[in-house]
Amino acid sequence: MVFVDFCVNLFRMDTNTINILYIDDEPHNLNAFRASFRRSFGVFTAESGAAALPILASEDIHIIITDQRMPNMTGVEFLESILTTYPDPIRILLTGYSDLSAVIDAINKGQVYLYVTKPWQEDELRLNLEKAFEVFALRKENKVLNDQLMLVNEQLEFMLRQKLLS
Amino acid sequence: MVFVDFCVNLFRMDTNTINILYIDDEPHNLNAFRASFRRSFGVFTAESGAAALPILASEDIHIIITDQRMPNMTGVEFLESILTTYPDPIRILLTGYSDLSAVIDAINKGQVYLYVTKPWQEDELRLNLEKAFEVFALRKENKVLNDQLMLVNEQLEFMLRQKLLS
Repeated sequence: MVFVDFCVNLFRMDTNTINILYIDDEPHNLNAFRASFRRSFGVFTAESGAAALPILASEDIHIIITDQRMPNMTGVEFLESILTTYPDPIRILLTGYSDLSAVIDAINKGQVYLYVTKPWQEDELRLNLEKAFEVFALRKENKVLNDQLMLVNEQLEFMLRQKLLS
Repeated sequence: MVFVDFCVNLFRMDTNTINILYIDDEPHNLNAFRASFRRSFGVFTAESGAAALPILASEDIHIIITDQRMPNMTGVEFLESILTTYPDPIRILLTGYSDLSAVIDAINKGQVYLYVTKPWQEDELRLNLEKAFEVFALRKENKVLNDQLMLVNEQLEFMLRQKLLS
């Protein structure tokens, strides 16, 4: 039997860096976002959904925040397209008040976790990013804890069977 | 040794009813809230912080939503006063745009989880209530999973010690 060196504190999210991918076709919005948040988070930016894909493939992204109105693909379309491959990052949509009914629909379909109306306010967006990360971390930690419980339980059952047989 | 009849699925939040306590000094707001949400959630209402206390003491409340501007005690003051006794419910503040700086301060101090601007829109508030409940449930499930892991780990250690001694 392989002994599982188990410890309750085995798994702790590495919360040192929260990695955020921000997608917007307007470069000055990307610059403003970077200027506001690069000291608090790991910030990655892309000017389109297409440009975001290699970043998603190579980096451990926790939160995706995307503008809704972009030339080739809307934010909701982009989020929908990556949902199967990248189900875990929390998805935030940046949008104007006029798009809200489409957004509520996207939230109900699970494509978007929350929306933030434009122009974003730094304080409010920061709070939303922190809350989004808490949800990401809690979901992940829950999954890991469940897996660990399953594993430790198997060990316990194995030992009980051995005890009964001996 | 007490055998822990352990099962990974032992703990599942009873998500059949999400219990929400809504506090507002204007009775027509309480009525509108009840009319909108009583089919989806367990709804409890109170016209003041003082009137909310017996409900908190007797019911298993998951989410507290309170108006900020009330005659004797503001929403933030109320939430601050109950924080030690009832740390678990997710706390939502209803407020006008003019109060936002005080609200951000209250969020940063941990008294308020999120705020919703008045007048609330049913669709948006419903989404926020569902997200708030997910956070409540994930935090609680995490705590229970950690406790279970600790317990099962103790069992495993006990059995390993026995094995080594025998």
